[in-house]
Amino acid sequence: MSTLLRVDASIRLDGSVSRALADSAEAAWKAEHPDGVVVRRDLGQHPLPATVWPTLAAAQVGQEPVADSDRMPLDEAKAIAADVAAELRAADAVLLAVPLYNYGIAQNVKTWIDLLLIDKELVHGPSPIAGRPAIFALARGGGYAPGTPKHGWDHATPYLERIFGEVFGMNIRTAAAELTLAPVTPGMEQLIDASKVSESEAHVDAEKHGTVVAREVIGTAA
Amino acid sequence: MSTLLRVDASIRLDGSVSRALADSAEAAWKAEHPDGVVVRRDLGQHPLPATVWPTLAAAQVGQEPVADSDRMPLDEAKAIAADVAAELRAADAVLLAVPLYNYGIAQNVKTWIDLLLIDKELVHGPSPIAGRPAIFALARGGGYAPGTPKHGWDHATPYLERIFGEVFGMNIRTAAAELTLAPVTPGMEQLIDASKVSESEAHVDAEKHGTVVAREVIGTAA
Repeated sequence: MSTLLRVDASIRLDGSVSRALADSAEAAWKAEHPDGVVVRRDLGQHPLPATVWPTLAAAQVGQEPVADSDRMPLDEAKAIAADVAAELRAADAVLLAVPLYNYGIAQNVKTWIDLLLIDKELVHGPSPIAGRPAIFALARGGGYAPGTPKHGWDHATPYLERIFGEVFGMNIRTAAAELTLAPVTPGMEQLIDASKVSESEAHVDAEKHGTVVAREVIGTAA
Repeated sequence: MSTLLRVDASIRLDGSVSRALADSAEAAWKAEHPDGVVVRRDLGQHPLPATVWPTLAAAQVGQEPVADSDRMPLDEAKAIAADVAAELRAADAVLLAVPLYNYGIAQNVKTWIDLLLIDKELVHGPSPIAGRPAIFALARGGGYAPGTPKHGWDHATPYLERIFGEVFGMNIRTAAAELTLAPVTPGMEQLIDASKVSESEAHVDAEKHGTVVAREVIGTAA
């Protein structure tokens, strides 16, 4: 029996493309691996409080608590960080569903990553999760492909690849839908068809990744 | 009389290099412009709550509140966003003191930027703050220069430049200190001298930027 950690970051439930892509990946994973367990963390519905990481990071550098600052009790912060890191360490595979928000990493995802990196073994290695598979289910409202005006404006994907690929040493497979705002944004009407093609292709990718990762995990576990 | 908005993001007070650089820039600005006003927002000591932006962004896309999700009252969130945007719009110049945290944008800064971008005029323009000066006072624990092993791992500076330079249309001047962790990190002893040089140069840059920006603001206002 193995575990898939699914992390959602969209602030939407209805109409979230990243959640829909993750649903496709998860369904394919389950179909291949019916006795697998899916553990969920929903950063979109339940963002981690803004004071957890500052409390822990300040303590790590030996900074005395300042009376006036917004912090939380250190023990409480440690418990949250331990919980978050344990969840990642226990996962045989990870499924990240992350929208691009304001050209950058979703704030709730950066908050979560900072908290993971309180675990010094995850930062400096040897990474306890090196070699494990990660599926990225990404949604971007606009188009960011080479040749488009906003090429280079997606500052989130390179950062996610840096942390999960290079710092954690995971093997990343990506399913990304672009132009997801076209169907609901005045002025983007002419991009609706391209948006549908992108979303449809991303679902095919997400399903494929779900299947392949389930097989990989079962094979490794066998 | 003109206004400098100073925003600090370091979770430290004592020993914060970004705060010290901002102190240098601010002192030079004041020396040149004694009747100028400095407005401060300290995101390091008082991070914005994690629920403000999700509440507002969900409302903007017409998402009905979900009973189970962590949100705040919409009116309260709107008041915070209006406050934050008004502060930026009212500033003749901006001084941002931001450390590089975990190779990415500081979580409290992304949270603040997301909130600013709730103001649709700041996103789509014409930017009400285009052409105004911004000083970046940046601190990085390691070395990220071309030729170093971690070149390309600073994912924060390009993002800050994107938002303040390209989205807001501000004129950015940067003072950046690198290797700031060398004096306090075992194994980095051989980099302490280079760290001191970098910090010293950054203070010179910060002072210069403070002086030049004050003159620019006074000139513009005259």
